[in-house]
Amino acid sequence: MNAIGIDVGGTNIKIGVVSKQGKVLKQDAFRVDPKEAGLSALKRIAKIINQYHKQYDIKGIGVGMPGILDLSTGELLYSSTTLNSWRQINIIKTLTKLTKLKVKISNDANVAALAEARFGKYKNVNSLILLTLGTGVGGGIIANKHLVEGNNGQGAELGHMSIDYHGRKCGCGRLGCLEAYVSAKALKKDAAKAFKKEIPVKDIFTLYEKGNPIAKKVINEYITYLGEGILNYCIIFRPEVILLSGGIAKAGSLLTKPLNIYLKKHHYGIKGTAKVLVDVASLHYDSGIIGAASLIL
Amino acid sequence: MNAIGIDVGGTNIKIGVVSKQGKVLKQDAFRVDPKEAGLSALKRIAKIINQYHKQYDIKGIGVGMPGILDLSTGELLYSSTTLNSWRQINIIKTLTKLTKLKVKISNDANVAALAEARFGKYKNVNSLILLTLGTGVGGGIIANKHLVEGNNGQGAELGHMSIDYHGRKCGCGRLGCLEAYVSAKALKKDAAKAFKKEIPVKDIFTLYEKGNPIAKKVINEYITYLGEGILNYCIIFRPEVILLSGGIAKAGSLLTKPLNIYLKKHHYGIKGTAKVLVDVASLHYDSGIIGAASLIL
Repeated sequence: MNAIGIDVGGTNIKIGVVSKQGKVLKQDAFRVDPKEAGLSALKRIAKIINQYHKQYDIKGIGVGMPGILDLSTGELLYSSTTLNSWRQINIIKTLTKLTKLKVKISNDANVAALAEARFGKYKNVNSLILLTLGTGVGGGIIANKHLVEGNNGQGAELGHMSIDYHGRKCGCGRLGCLEAYVSAKALKKDAAKAFKKEIPVKDIFTLYEKGNPIAKKVINEYITYLGEGILNYCIIFRPEVILLSGGIAKAGSLLTKPLNIYLKKHHYGIKGTAKVLVDVASLHYDSGIIGAASLIL
Repeated sequence: MNAIGIDVGGTNIKIGVVSKQGKVLKQDAFRVDPKEAGLSALKRIAKIINQYHKQYDIKGIGVGMPGILDLSTGELLYSSTTLNSWRQINIIKTLTKLTKLKVKISNDANVAALAEARFGKYKNVNSLILLTLGTGVGGGIIANKHLVEGNNGQGAELGHMSIDYHGRKCGCGRLGCLEAYVSAKALKKDAAKAFKKEIPVKDIFTLYEKGNPIAKKVINEYITYLGEGILNYCIIFRPEVILLSGGIAKAGSLLTKPLNIYLKKHHYGIKGTAKVLVDVASLHYDSGIIGAASLIL
């Protein structure tokens, strides 16, 4: 038995048939048109699904999308992306009606965490945290092998934990949110200030690798911010693994190596307590589809 | 079928028979003697349990104790209490051998959260956080009706989440831990500084109630610290309820009223998202016994 995974992003919508083993058997994608009504996009998606359904045994549909959702209806309550036209639509009811299949929905970062826990490099662990370091900062929590989504799916906003109650102002209104320090936007801003010019994230890490002192200062500060956020998540969840994904995680060991040194140096618990591994996420392009399908599989 | 709950504290050890409905049917207690070897105390406990076992149907034994434990063995890895003589004992194996009953163990704050989730005022919720505001600050997490204990039970150290990465030095070695701001010790220290003399916690709240301007300043700052910590837990877990226990929670509405005002004023999520209720814990004296027994019930 397979499931459909729908990965709704701010740029693309990807739809795939995923096997019980987490393999994507078939997939399609189309670009998000901010001018297209959400209902019209859903009809396009349903058409593709109904085609799939003729070819494959399908158990149900899982949807992963950014923003704050009402889990019971799939209604998008808040989104800072191009998906504003999707608001006030009961996505679950609409897709169920159009496809006659069972529909479940969750936040994109939650389903990415679920994909890692079910089919990733660390699929045998009981607990993991996924932290997405992109334009914004999100996350997903797996404890006792299950998603911790919070009441009506509105928890796990891991980018909005404050690491400094009188710190930087975040877009959400709070002070000191992790996102205000470790998002790609924040890193670019910090780098622009240090270099006195705009500089792409990739180049900051390249300069850091070459030993550029300004890049070193910027990245060391970044490691402190991210390290403190991760230490908080270690203290709270003591997961077996913390996985990093999103644009900044592309820096790979340039990010994880100094980060692991920072974490070892600072408080990680006392002698004898369980270690926490920090690594980059193992599933990339398809993790959205696979994770969404995992809500059903 | 009933279970035994053992509430190991820094001052007293309480042992009770708890029914499936969460009622304490019988209980005993004795004072902790810091000079007594842990093994000797365990033998005393086993003797009481074996007496209970003659009178009641007993399914197993649950133990709640402070400090950092190895969940698989029940070994106490770290404790700042009078229980140092309990270290390096495989509590699970020892008690099983002495009583022939199944034994489970968890941190005292975890089992207190479990007691609230199973038998407290909010026993119908799926998710809650319990925050103990005592000499130290601890906590327990219930998500999807289950304890989130972390790898080998070493998570949920809710007092050691930092709310200021360059803030106050905590006893654990980190900077800005919530405990360094909202423990009874921290509140007393802040009050002593403001009043220029030592003053008991109870009196600070009494003065606050009477409108004393120094007490008002101290408590308002306390509410900010606690409010920011709680906001973090709302963002991360979006629980249905956050319960406060421990010495400071005795202030009741003098604490929860300004706290709820602070939380409403600050970022709680966007319009339409689920509310989080903050209240004092409903089970008091026996919550340790009931919670410990809940590990089995």
